[in-house]
Amino acid sequence: MHTLWDDRFALRTDSIGSSAIRELLKLTSLPDVISFAGGLPAPDLFPIQRFKEAAEVVLTEMGERALQYGTTEGYQPLREMIAHNATKYGIQISADNVLITTGSQQALDLLGRIFINRGDRVLVESPTYLGALQAWNAYGVKYVTIPFDEDGMQTDRLESRLRTGLKFIYVLPNFQNPTGVTLSRERRMQLVEMANAYGVPIVEDDPYGQLRYEGEHIPPVVVLDDEIRAKEVPIYSGNVIYTSTFSKILAPGLRLAWVVAPTDVIKKLVQAKQGCDLNTSTFNQYLAYEVANGPWMKTHIQTIRETYKERRDVMLKALEDYMPEGVNWTRPKGGLFLWVTTPESLDTQTIFKSAVEQKVAFVPGNSFHPLGGGHNTMRLNFSCMKPDLIDEGIKRLAEVIKNNL
Amino acid sequence: MHTLWDDRFALRTDSIGSSAIRELLKLTSLPDVISFAGGLPAPDLFPIQRFKEAAEVVLTEMGERALQYGTTEGYQPLREMIAHNATKYGIQISADNVLITTGSQQALDLLGRIFINRGDRVLVESPTYLGALQAWNAYGVKYVTIPFDEDGMQTDRLESRLRTGLKFIYVLPNFQNPTGVTLSRERRMQLVEMANAYGVPIVEDDPYGQLRYEGEHIPPVVVLDDEIRAKEVPIYSGNVIYTSTFSKILAPGLRLAWVVAPTDVIKKLVQAKQGCDLNTSTFNQYLAYEVANGPWMKTHIQTIRETYKERRDVMLKALEDYMPEGVNWTRPKGGLFLWVTTPESLDTQTIFKSAVEQKVAFVPGNSFHPLGGGHNTMRLNFSCMKPDLIDEGIKRLAEVIKNNL
Repeated sequence: MHTLWDDRFALRTDSIGSSAIRELLKLTSLPDVISFAGGLPAPDLFPIQRFKEAAEVVLTEMGERALQYGTTEGYQPLREMIAHNATKYGIQISADNVLITTGSQQALDLLGRIFINRGDRVLVESPTYLGALQAWNAYGVKYVTIPFDEDGMQTDRLESRLRTGLKFIYVLPNFQNPTGVTLSRERRMQLVEMANAYGVPIVEDDPYGQLRYEGEHIPPVVVLDDEIRAKEVPIYSGNVIYTSTFSKILAPGLRLAWVVAPTDVIKKLVQAKQGCDLNTSTFNQYLAYEVANGPWMKTHIQTIRETYKERRDVMLKALEDYMPEGVNWTRPKGGLFLWVTTPESLDTQTIFKSAVEQKVAFVPGNSFHPLGGGHNTMRLNFSCMKPDLIDEGIKRLAEVIKNNL
Repeated sequence: MHTLWDDRFALRTDSIGSSAIRELLKLTSLPDVISFAGGLPAPDLFPIQRFKEAAEVVLTEMGERALQYGTTEGYQPLREMIAHNATKYGIQISADNVLITTGSQQALDLLGRIFINRGDRVLVESPTYLGALQAWNAYGVKYVTIPFDEDGMQTDRLESRLRTGLKFIYVLPNFQNPTGVTLSRERRMQLVEMANAYGVPIVEDDPYGQLRYEGEHIPPVVVLDDEIRAKEVPIYSGNVIYTSTFSKILAPGLRLAWVVAPTDVIKKLVQAKQGCDLNTSTFNQYLAYEVANGPWMKTHIQTIRETYKERRDVMLKALEDYMPEGVNWTRPKGGLFLWVTTPESLDTQTIFKSAVEQKVAFVPGNSFHPLGGGHNTMRLNFSCMKPDLIDEGIKRLAEVIKNNL
């Protein structure tokens, strides 16, 4: 159908591509497909009973406020809870440093909106989180990439990149999406020291930090940044903006996440958010506060950890059992994903179709590389499928790979 | 606190101002202030019991899906319900023409994002909805304005403006925010005919269409646009994009609205929305569908109409009783707002402070004028306060005006 709108699209829509992840998500709903493609948390772990009780309490005791417009900054008790929890992890902030966003995706979009001028350079890991690329492409960003290995971003390659004039550095230090690798403590230190030396700020994206299945907790980049400056008690320097979400520890259907930033940045983010959606669902914020408050949350996260650890182990064992020689993969200590590298001769986009015919799905790795590359890589999600399906799915995938080598 | 972010804000943040409405909303929470400033629906009309029942059903019967990520387009049964209702009003569309957004504010933002290049001209009524100005300022829009009278936008002044090269026309035909006036049927016809003649598409924003308290329903602009082209049954031409919301008929705390557009535009909106917040809260969409489905909704809207009609009448009578000579106001046939014009000598921004001291609040009218003007105007909301407070508030406001004449 031809309409008057056809010739009126803004120039920036040329760079807003449809996300491969979102297109592929549609395949997860095809019957019989064992999908490792999504980034979905396991729905069988959603605390449905607790949500029911919370909805009852919220609607009975504060229904009129919970269903009304709210402030753009977010529900004050929720902001305070987040500030309080952050302080426990060593990030010395108050509720004024916290903005509630409509999912982490909005946090990334708002950061792009207030910081990125067309042509600005942002350093990202390659591969990196597709949602960030999608959010920032709309603002005409130019990416500078840095490769990774099993200890995360290769910080010994940072300096030459810092000298190119960066707006900021974007890093997912814990169980990175898509690779599953974790930035080591030494490299985190190197990152904050180098960034500090060159005066370049950092955006730290940490959706999975609480989902560690083995090894010791490593302090977030924001904490290490504060520590290098600290005399006695570390104070939030504001040079690292930190973002996390309720999507992986409660439920993504709420669309609830948060940003920790200096108050001047929060003010600009709030102004930008007013133009985007006025405020994040008041009802969902009340609900999340009611659900997440108190000691229950700790037990719940422990349950998620145990379940996902088992699924990760099943996937790692299945890979070991079924994959042909020449196929390698990461061994994540937490999170939702692992990263498979096949021999160079294979193109994961090409085999995607036969994989779906064999009723198994993944995300081809090239889409996570902002400047190209990764044709022989793929991302596998291990959180969403039950163990027997994970085993069966990897078996099918190994067959597809064998047949295409 | 000085941080590395301070000197890194994007140029576009210069044009993202903090919304006067949002700043003023803070005053509504001060104790004892009778606030006509907000745009809030009456919380005593929120169907809390029905929400409770719906939450129970959604969580029990489809909790795992309702708490999971959803498609960017929106929950399919909700899209179908909206398409079905639109068809009843004469807009012949299918669910494929419907996108669910995180409030109307997001609909406006996404439209700006996919259509407005820096410097593009958009025709708006003056005064117009502040949220639209706020959304589109971020994209560097240039406004062309058209004045209003008691029959809405003065369409006899359209032609010269259409010749200036417009990207699109933005119109709120029913009980416009902020003035409360309604675009007459004749003018709607003139608008679609002229826009059609010049090949300029229209965005129709209709948050209050169902809240009519007297007079006959006038078909939306989108319907009239289809009719002028129709041979037998009008078919959706796609030249008018239509947006409405659940905020005024259910609850704004859900942040749920929708856009009706040609499928090619929906596709671009979906791509843009992926970068903004992935999808609108799945849980809230399931909830709204459960609450709004069936005959209950009609009765509920009838209750809202009766309550708001009474409040409007009380405000009109109080204005008549207390306001000094030289003060005029609109007499809206629906919606949430009316518009007061004081003598030229008075500046409503100047008297705002004394009004708040006298414990009454409004929104100074100048903020709704994109190119300036309206210093002696103000917007009053009549939906949120109970009748005795409306009477008392207008009495106080009349005193403040008298003292400043």
